[in-house]
Amino acid sequence: MEFQDVVRRRRMVRTFTEDPIDPEVVERIVANAQRAPSAGFSQGWAFLVLDGRDETERYWNATMTPGRRKEFGWPGMFNAPLIIVCLSNKSAYLDRYSLPDKGWADRDESRWPVPYWDIDAGMAGLLVLQTAVDAGLGAVFFGVFDQAGFRTAFGIPDDYAAVGTIAIGHKAPNDRPSPSLKIVGKKPSSEVVHRGRW
Amino acid sequence: MEFQDVVRRRRMVRTFTEDPIDPEVVERIVANAQRAPSAGFSQGWAFLVLDGRDETERYWNATMTPGRRKEFGWPGMFNAPLIIVCLSNKSAYLDRYSLPDKGWADRDESRWPVPYWDIDAGMAGLLVLQTAVDAGLGAVFFGVFDQAGFRTAFGIPDDYAAVGTIAIGHKAPNDRPSPSLKIVGKKPSSEVVHRGRW
Repeated sequence: MEFQDVVRRRRMVRTFTEDPIDPEVVERIVANAQRAPSAGFSQGWAFLVLDGRDETERYWNATMTPGRRKEFGWPGMFNAPLIIVCLSNKSAYLDRYSLPDKGWADRDESRWPVPYWDIDAGMAGLLVLQTAVDAGLGAVFFGVFDQAGFRTAFGIPDDYAAVGTIAIGHKAPNDRPSPSLKIVGKKPSSEVVHRGRW
Repeated sequence: MEFQDVVRRRRMVRTFTEDPIDPEVVERIVANAQRAPSAGFSQGWAFLVLDGRDETERYWNATMTPGRRKEFGWPGMFNAPLIIVCLSNKSAYLDRYSLPDKGWADRDESRWPVPYWDIDAGMAGLLVLQTAVDAGLGAVFFGVFDQAGFRTAFGIPDDYAAVGTIAIGHKAPNDRPSPSLKIVGKKPSSEVVHRGRW
């Protein structure tokens, strides 16, 4: 698909069919995620790939109580045959920037104006979303608000944080857009884009 | 350009010619940035667009001392005719999630496992980088380590943080890759991709 069409068509899909995903597409999604930029080429991201119902069910069970799951407003999300969790590793960045060419041997976090470890993992997440669109699939990115439950269930090391989970699959005909679009509305460019100065 | 070609070709370009950028391309870059996803459609990003030598010089003068600028290893970056600074506004997210449909009326930051305001602005930055590639241009994303100097020079409100600056232009023939690629090397997929469990 043309790049501009991917950008134009990408939106969060929250209701999937149970149809499986072509294994080649899964591999292309994973490969593209690893093409995300990273500060100093630190590559401090990681990807947990959960492929097929057995593995995705483990995700939902680990991060949602049965009660919460029953009341969840987007049950069609549980049909997604593929889940990719994007994780970030701050230590990889502190290590990378302590090397002689960067020279921040103190590994002092206060040198970092914003957390590029999380930002780079987010960029990898966008590549996952886009590649899904390019392959004719739908996908949704959402936060992992029970980091501890997730960490325990999948044996995630302490120095990794889950930046976001992406559920991927074939969009169901009854998918509907998030209410956020109406509640908030699109911000006018005049509020968002500043030319020459603020 | 095909989406997959944009993904494959995207890499940081640090040496530009002084050739100007087609104004339509500038507008497409800015429009695509605003298509970044954002948590709860908070749209807490902003973009400072510096177009042409007068405006880009103000950026470099504000964020680099003359001494540092003289010693800077990538002087061809100063030729870039377009700079876009991606900013994030945490308050926009706390405000959005305090609305009734989300219900975090306490605006408590500890509810947020990772800073989605910065992550979403980073995704917008990736869209800028990709759109440059799609238009046959080069671009480089880098951190704003003198937030205070930048803020003062351009009148940035206190509740916005610069997540990254992107210099965009026509790639010069003498552009060379970052030494980071050799110093660090590409991480093997086996370290980065975890299937089913860690």
